[in-house]
Amino acid sequence: MPTTITHLSVRDIRFPTSRSLDGSDAMNTAPDYSATYVVLHTDAPSALEGHGLTFTIGRGNEVCVAAVNSLASFVVGRTLEEISGDIGAFWHSITGDSQLRWLGPDKGVMHLATAAIVNAVWDLWAKSEGKPVWKLLADMSPEELVRCLDFRFVTDALTPEEALAILRRNARGKAAREQEMLEQGYPGYTTSAGWLGYSEEKMRRLAREGVAEGWTHFKQKVGGNIEEDMRRAAILREEIGWDRKLMMDANQVWEVDEAIVNMRRLAAFEPWWIEEPTNPDDILGHATIRERIAPIGMATGEHCHNRVMFKQLLQAKAIDFCQVDAARLGGLNEVLVVLLMAAKFGVPVCPHAGGVGLCEYVQNIALFDYIAVSASLENRVLEYVDHLHEHFLDPVVIRKGRYMPPQRPGYSIEMHAATLKEFEFPNGPAWA
Amino acid sequence: MPTTITHLSVRDIRFPTSRSLDGSDAMNTAPDYSATYVVLHTDAPSALEGHGLTFTIGRGNEVCVAAVNSLASFVVGRTLEEISGDIGAFWHSITGDSQLRWLGPDKGVMHLATAAIVNAVWDLWAKSEGKPVWKLLADMSPEELVRCLDFRFVTDALTPEEALAILRRNARGKAAREQEMLEQGYPGYTTSAGWLGYSEEKMRRLAREGVAEGWTHFKQKVGGNIEEDMRRAAILREEIGWDRKLMMDANQVWEVDEAIVNMRRLAAFEPWWIEEPTNPDDILGHATIRERIAPIGMATGEHCHNRVMFKQLLQAKAIDFCQVDAARLGGLNEVLVVLLMAAKFGVPVCPHAGGVGLCEYVQNIALFDYIAVSASLENRVLEYVDHLHEHFLDPVVIRKGRYMPPQRPGYSIEMHAATLKEFEFPNGPAWA
Repeated sequence: MPTTITHLSVRDIRFPTSRSLDGSDAMNTAPDYSATYVVLHTDAPSALEGHGLTFTIGRGNEVCVAAVNSLASFVVGRTLEEISGDIGAFWHSITGDSQLRWLGPDKGVMHLATAAIVNAVWDLWAKSEGKPVWKLLADMSPEELVRCLDFRFVTDALTPEEALAILRRNARGKAAREQEMLEQGYPGYTTSAGWLGYSEEKMRRLAREGVAEGWTHFKQKVGGNIEEDMRRAAILREEIGWDRKLMMDANQVWEVDEAIVNMRRLAAFEPWWIEEPTNPDDILGHATIRERIAPIGMATGEHCHNRVMFKQLLQAKAIDFCQVDAARLGGLNEVLVVLLMAAKFGVPVCPHAGGVGLCEYVQNIALFDYIAVSASLENRVLEYVDHLHEHFLDPVVIRKGRYMPPQRPGYSIEMHAATLKEFEFPNGPAWA
Repeated sequence: MPTTITHLSVRDIRFPTSRSLDGSDAMNTAPDYSATYVVLHTDAPSALEGHGLTFTIGRGNEVCVAAVNSLASFVVGRTLEEISGDIGAFWHSITGDSQLRWLGPDKGVMHLATAAIVNAVWDLWAKSEGKPVWKLLADMSPEELVRCLDFRFVTDALTPEEALAILRRNARGKAAREQEMLEQGYPGYTTSAGWLGYSEEKMRRLAREGVAEGWTHFKQKVGGNIEEDMRRAAILREEIGWDRKLMMDANQVWEVDEAIVNMRRLAAFEPWWIEEPTNPDDILGHATIRERIAPIGMATGEHCHNRVMFKQLLQAKAIDFCQVDAARLGGLNEVLVVLLMAAKFGVPVCPHAGGVGLCEYVQNIALFDYIAVSASLENRVLEYVDHLHEHFLDPVVIRKGRYMPPQRPGYSIEMHAATLKEFEFPNGPAWA
């Protein structure tokens, strides 16, 4: 019996994080971490559902909700078997509508909404197979995987044949790497100490706790006052020492020239990378900054809106770390294209996480990347932020600074019913 | 007495153009030209209103309407005097909200919606001054103009001082160029013959009429079947001869390598430019194609979503013609920044038009560009498409292939009340 997607529901879920300045940085001064939360309902006797969300930071989440409703017709009424039988074609259809693509293409609100739906489809598929998403992917043959992808507009950087070759080359060691991940987990790093809105004492305490918990990589928000950035970096180095890695994140606030000047000062604290030093669309700007501040690594991607932009970041030698986001790109299909391009160009993928649900999502991506695509952990760490995990049925499990692979079927993104009720905007109890 | 913007209304207006394949091209196969139509209502005794629209091609226009509603609070309750007194700061506020910018920044649905509101503000301001927008701009001093602009993220390409220098250099000849425009108009080109969905006979007839009307530049849509593109180019050359210019427009359908191969074949018809040969985000791809198909010029911009992308198209030497769009960018403020960057890099601006209302908008931009910024008509032509002008109070006036400057106060974008009623989606008579 095929499973039909009978309807889609979408909710505007917001958490009042701005009240405690969790997640505050130089650009995003007071975010209310939010989710455009999608459920695909089916006629399966088991009440099988697909859940997916796109992450926003508050105001405007209602526009993503409207966009999801405008895209619903691409899934409702279709069967899971029809979609999973050629999920590449499905992705092409939902992103390729000749009228809707005018609103992008592949960017902004429509693409964020696409991510929520596409990821819900993957959640549905993985649940129907009884596997977490990383395992569903890892169990595919190279040929099956390549059929999931849309290479349109990136064939000058990666052909389907090249993608196949990468996957085939690493097919042999897959089982061993999977076992290694199940036993040891995937290396993470923590951003929890470094928020710009936190007092210096709070930062110092959190850094100390992080060291005690076994973290080896710490990220600091910069881009406020440069003297203050320096002072906070000094505090962090005092707490974490010089053997652990310190990363910095400017969240897009600097001009190109300003980024160079400021990073040359912050170089004294030996940052491993600078993340989002300037506008996320500025591929050439990132390339220029990278060249001028070497050996500090360049990291970006959480606002890189599609595979064409990542292609250019790689072609222009603009990045040392590829920070793919699970819901900024148009869902998992497009993420997979980026993983393969990064592998071809030899750039490590360190997914963006935090927010709400992003850690849950990207552990699947990082695990699959290691098991089947890059086959390397060198210079790879997965972001961790310790907020809002209690709202998920299958929250991330961290052990000594490493992500332990999720076991429950799906994309680990399903929220508790009580959370959805409590935090629905604007009428849930948390907002009323 | 200051004028307060008391409320904003927004309507979903759609024209069923897909029924006749007007506007059909290789990517946009069956567009329903649409407008997210904004009115700013005021308490002025004269019932002064500001009108603005953003152009879409049908489905999804309702998402832009939702986005306008989410942005309304940036104008409602403010006075015109407060906004026009520092319209640069106003633009910064409406594009810089720390939560909303997560949905972009400066791209997709939110930026399209921003354009409708920002352009409505300019319409309101120009009406209050009793001038068309081009004249409002042309009468500003260099200092006043630069104060309208937001240079954030482009200072590595254009500083306020450089912008001032450009404007001051050309301040002297302004009156003479304005007079020249009033007498002779701004040179245009026609796309009306070249739609992909038109039969060869219809194309031939329209080309012949175009020649008789005095047009010297014709644009053909390409990117379907290459043999058919060749045949249609041959027909157009038969009709327009080899002294008139022929431009080609692929509307983003080709891969980078495919564009090079196809344009080398189409080179036999001596195209003056190829427009949108591939994905609009692919700055490096455009640069590569341009280098490989010289001397055919490279044109793009209607889908170039912000000033940071235009900056890079200029820095990468990717374009010969800058096809700025009046509503893809975040309204007139951002357009002005692009005009000044293009002037600095010596690249002619040939705005994108057509759709609904874009010709009405961009005549203001091209006139101002000539009078105050570029001071040149060399390699500059303004797109003209002969659809839907009857819906505007102040439709464009074309004389022998040239745009005659609008005289009525405002941005020439106000539609007839009867049109707004007839074409409102989904309940207007045209759709019911």
